Amino acid sequence: MEQTPDPLARLRTAAGTREAAGLKRSLRARTPDDDGLIDLASNDYLGLARDRRLIEAATEATRVWGTGSTGSRLVTGSTALHAELEARLCAFTRARGALVFSSGYLANLAAVAALGRGALVVSEAGNHASIVDACRLSRSRVVVTPHKDVTAVEKALADRDEEHAIVVTDAVFSVDGDLAPLAELHAATVRQGALLIVDEAHSIGVIGPHGRGAVHAAGLAAEPGVVRTVTLSKSLGSQGGAVLGAPEVIETLIDTGRSFIFDTGLAPGSVAAALAAVDILQNQPELPGCVRTRARELASMARELGLETNDPAGAVVPIVLGPPESALRAALICAERGVRAGCFRPPSVPVGRSCLRLTARANLSSEDLAVIRGALTAVAEMKVTM
Amino acid sequence: MEQTPDPLARLRTAAGTREAAGLKRSLRARTPDDDGLIDLASNDYLGLARDRRLIEAATEATRVWGTGSTGSRLVTGSTALHAELEARLCAFTRARGALVFSSGYLANLAAVAALGRGALVVSEAGNHASIVDACRLSRSRVVVTPHKDVTAVEKALADRDEEHAIVVTDAVFSVDGDLAPLAELHAATVRQGALLIVDEAHSIGVIGPHGRGAVHAAGLAAEPGVVRTVTLSKSLGSQGGAVLGAPEVIETLIDTGRSFIFDTGLAPGSVAAALAAVDILQNQPELPGCVRTRARELASMARELGLETNDPAGAVVPIVLGPPESALRAALICAERGVRAGCFRPPSVPVGRSCLRLTARANLSSEDLAVIRGALTAVAEMKVTM
Ligand SMILES: Cc1ncc(COP(=O)(O)O)c(C=O)c1O
Ligand SMILES: Cc1ncc(COP(=O)(O)O)c(C=O)c1O
Repeated sequence: MEQTPDPLARLRTAAGTREAAGLKRSLRARTPDDDGLIDLASNDYLGLARDRRLIEAATEATRVWGTGSTGSRLVTGSTALHAELEARLCAFTRARGALVFSSGYLANLAAVAALGRGALVVSEAGNHASIVDACRLSRSRVVVTPHKDVTAVEKALADRDEEHAIVVTDAVFSVDGDLAPLAELHAATVRQGALLIVDEAHSIGVIGPHGRGAVHAAGLAAEPGVVRTVTLSKSLGSQGGAVLGAPEVIETLIDTGRSFIFDTGLAPGSVAAALAAVDILQNQPELPGCVRTRARELASMARELGLETNDPAGAVVPIVLGPPESALRAALICAERGVRAGCFRPPSVPVGRSCLRLTARANLSSEDLAVIRGALTAVAEMKVTM
Repeated sequence: MEQTPDPLARLRTAAGTREAAGLKRSLRARTPDDDGLIDLASNDYLGLARDRRLIEAATEATRVWGTGSTGSRLVTGSTALHAELEARLCAFTRARGALVFSSGYLANLAAVAALGRGALVVSEAGNHASIVDACRLSRSRVVVTPHKDVTAVEKALADRDEEHAIVVTDAVFSVDGDLAPLAELHAATVRQGALLIVDEAHSIGVIGPHGRGAVHAAGLAAEPGVVRTVTLSKSLGSQGGAVLGAPEVIETLIDTGRSFIFDTGLAPGSVAAALAAVDILQNQPELPGCVRTRARELASMARELGLETNDPAGAVVPIVLGPPESALRAALICAERGVRAGCFRPPSVPVGRSCLRLTARANLSSEDLAVIRGALTAVAEMKVTM
């Protein structure tokens, strides 16, 4: 064994390699209004994170319950507010049970690792990093199937030696913005006796009537073999996550979900903000439709300008640029022209698929759209001249 | 392959097995004052989660910044408030860099998985579940060493084929409440060219002057090869976590830490509450000493009554009872006598080591201690008669 006197040397070497590959990142501390830029980067699709009703609910809950939940949900971290949110999420999404987590990431880890334990895990290639990590934590055999390839999923299920199996997919894919074939996947899992886990991070509040999500829109909300995970941190404007499913599923996670048992419960203020967001979705059913329309407008605009994009199912509109440097430069061009765009490079996207990730917002005005057109025109010109 | 027509059947079977083994759990939704019980169960060691200053800070930040951070910290989820907390955590703990996460769990996953990648990972047997999960996610060879066995750690490091290595340990163990041999571990990692990662979840705000933590108390705060993880959800009364370390460490996590890159930033209100808590620790240096004194009093009391406990280094005092049923019954007895005690059963503790987990609070009064003595006396009587 060769000794390394400086244990940080290898980190510096690796950082140099990332730098040379255009993969260095730095954090930008934004101001409350992000310098007046039009926000096409955040996941606050409905603009609820700054909504007065959410802010009131969060501050009131913080006064009543304090700033932290003080423990694991199994010890002191479950409050009446957590129980209320669970009941309301059930009513809203038509799920039979719900369990709130401190993040969507940890909700996915628990759902996939606990339900996938001792079973075959079939995970699709486009799934979110938290699902990939969860597959690893299941310590089961994992088969990764190509993007939206239901035949490959059914084949993996049919060929298995394991008695049990789960299939896991994003509903709306987090960067590509397209929708998983949920009805077909569900039919395959029913035929093959498997559970289907659907991550509704980018579909809750966005897809279907009232934004009840893609599973509900596909008519699968009452199916016993369908488990959903959601995050409270995107369209719901808060922080946290939840698993929705049959009582058997919820009990399994309470008793065996490591990222549930061994994590502090969600802060009361965040619970209350998510509750207020669900209320708003109940009462303003037009919001999810607005955001979907805006997303389609952004995609048409990009296509007209000769940029590579996708048919958005929800709020997410990718603009594929290829090398990381192009994506960085495009994001800079957008910022100079008044638009904040997300810049996605590996490992967030596959190598060669660096992109801008635009997210529509329900309240974009036609003035905003004119500014955005200016920015995207400049991006298209940059692409031509590179 | 045998088909399972009901994909939930296996979950019901497993739940039956847990029930029979006394390992079924249910969530109790507490009221704001937990029905007036004395809290010996939460991790709110300094009583800050209900502190007026934290509540004010959280509500003000929620008004200014909104109820959510709206995206990954690499996109829109970093605010000036996050940057301020990172600077203040550095100043407080004497670390050179800090990175805030949405939970301590996800901070551990990033630190251990990203720094352990391609290295030997040496993890101690008593480490928290989030560290165990993180070891799995590193996809490296993992050696688990016996509790506080520095010789075994050094042997694993010396015998390795891997060029690089990390050693990871809790500072104060989350259920046993004892302290890791940090100085000896550090000497071993220096000799063997390894990084040392210390989880300060139960030592920040509790151990050393001002509660700067166990690494600082051991004189290791300036060591380049020492990385710390902390949670904001226990003594700091909020939610979230952070990694403290050299700039090279922080950069590595920003560029490659999956649970950093792919998770929504901590909600502004929680960031602000943690900031206020650090302020209080700066200005009220007596708080950590109070909680340690109370913990030692609780342990002496338990020992006098013939109960099996430990020498508490921080706030955590275990009362080992053995079978899960005894722990459940003891927790019930405590509740009947006015004391909320944590009840820990497998998988939270090893089989046969079910226990009450008592946590001291800085503000326990002598009246409280009298009530607690009554409860523990009844637990001791139960133990004798069982
Ligand atoms: C598809 C998907 N699942 C899960 C998550 C994790 O949710 P959270 O940020 O609330 O942890 C995200 C985004 O962060 C996501 O895009
Ligand atoms: C030792 C230790 N590390 C990490 C964590 C996770 O921190 P958090 O609850 O903030 O996710 C905990 C407790 O929950 C813990 O006890």
